[in-house]
Amino acid sequence: MTRFGTMSLGNATRAFRVEGDHIALLDAGDVGELLRSGLPLDEPGTPAPMPAPQDLRPPVTRPSKVVCVGLNYRDHAREVGKPVPEYPTLFAKYPSAFVGAAEPIHLPALSVSDRVDWEAELVVVVGTRVFQADADEAAAAIFGYTAMNDVSMRDWQRRTEEWLQGKNFERSTPIGPVVVSADELDLDAGLRVETLLGDRVVQSGSTDDLVFRPVDIVRYITQFMSLEPGDLIATGTPAGVGVSRTPSEFLDDGDLLITRITGIGELRNPCLREASS
Amino acid sequence: MTRFGTMSLGNATRAFRVEGDHIALLDAGDVGELLRSGLPLDEPGTPAPMPAPQDLRPPVTRPSKVVCVGLNYRDHAREVGKPVPEYPTLFAKYPSAFVGAAEPIHLPALSVSDRVDWEAELVVVVGTRVFQADADEAAAAIFGYTAMNDVSMRDWQRRTEEWLQGKNFERSTPIGPVVVSADELDLDAGLRVETLLGDRVVQSGSTDDLVFRPVDIVRYITQFMSLEPGDLIATGTPAGVGVSRTPSEFLDDGDLLITRITGIGELRNPCLREASS
Repeated sequence: MTRFGTMSLGNATRAFRVEGDHIALLDAGDVGELLRSGLPLDEPGTPAPMPAPQDLRPPVTRPSKVVCVGLNYRDHAREVGKPVPEYPTLFAKYPSAFVGAAEPIHLPALSVSDRVDWEAELVVVVGTRVFQADADEAAAAIFGYTAMNDVSMRDWQRRTEEWLQGKNFERSTPIGPVVVSADELDLDAGLRVETLLGDRVVQSGSTDDLVFRPVDIVRYITQFMSLEPGDLIATGTPAGVGVSRTPSEFLDDGDLLITRITGIGELRNPCLREASS
Repeated sequence: MTRFGTMSLGNATRAFRVEGDHIALLDAGDVGELLRSGLPLDEPGTPAPMPAPQDLRPPVTRPSKVVCVGLNYRDHAREVGKPVPEYPTLFAKYPSAFVGAAEPIHLPALSVSDRVDWEAELVVVVGTRVFQADADEAAAAIFGYTAMNDVSMRDWQRRTEEWLQGKNFERSTPIGPVVVSADELDLDAGLRVETLLGDRVVQSGSTDDLVFRPVDIVRYITQFMSLEPGDLIATGTPAGVGVSRTPSEFLDDGDLLITRITGIGELRNPCLREASS
């Protein structure tokens, strides 16, 4: 069981390793710094109690890259009326969009967007620098996995040809709660990737249904660009997004958005709408 | 005259300020760190000779964001057959794509891409954190400007709906040579933004023709996300890209790509093609 996370500690953040019912505080500001530092991941660290959920921060606070894959579940491609893609569709998220596992999701004023949707995703955490990788190198570069909800403002996503602006609203994307090392998860067994609105399940897909699997995605990306320790790759969302439901559904002030993945854990984020100015 | 840059020094990089015919080395690893540090920009520093062009590095080596605006010159929108946009089209570049002002542009093997194109661009360098800015705040947040060539693999750009993968080939995007403070440039007078292949001018546009001007773009972006010191915004390219020429033209091994903007200076990057594997 190897689980790492990042928590607030005073005015700073600190990486930790889960040790049964407590944690070991490590000598790095976040899991990204831990991976870049080359420090041994099993250093004893300083024992501390398990952090409260509200103290969890995004496991990697300043990745050099957050790459997102679109249309990567067969059932989701179908629900949005697109063919199963020949190549991965890639777009970017900036870390300014992230919030931790229990922080509020910032909904913009209704006059700015009234079409805020959910997308539960399995996220690859890169452990070592990798470029032009073969399958073995790609597998070896994957340190572990975390969970994310790629909360998307559908109106802004569709304003132009490029989706970026609908995917990068400030403090709108929960990520965590922890990073689970790759050896702990059996993707081939089919991890369940879910979104719940309160106690109602609105997305429940399986990684069995992925078009491009994590190793394929790392190979594809590193054909043209390098990946570094702490870089994140969000692998896409299964069916059940709000915009494709009948009738469409969107997030509202006061909703509790729960994102959970087998073996990783869950994010529980209240939605908090900004007052109109 | 206030010009800042980043150069190699031993195994590291260092920010500098141009002082007539020499420079002052400053106490920061790059212009991004200098802006984030809050150090006075006029600290005396250590006098040193002007760096050779090959020692220049990207002025900001690890920006938290590189935001690119597409279709932002009227003449370029026309040449690619698109209407003048109602909203800025935004996509991302990662810093792994950057090279300095005289470094080789890495062309992939022909079997990977044979459609490598040029896009000269004026780049905004953000000086202070800014979110939900009005026009005055947006103007105040612009520290200065630099030049970039958004070298684009057109085949990869068009593989999927999202352009990202054609815009992020490793070590393909020259940027620099320096950052010129905003007070030194009069955008309203129309800066000339040019690409040359050797001694042949292939792009020559004017910032007069911009659809969304730097202050407009900062206001637009900060409606939904924050910008931080050292963040970069590439403002789009004028007409004359290779794919829209008759016949189409693309970069080849041995080409010298020159990118120049009035008042900022020029990038002179040889193109070097990777051998087929």
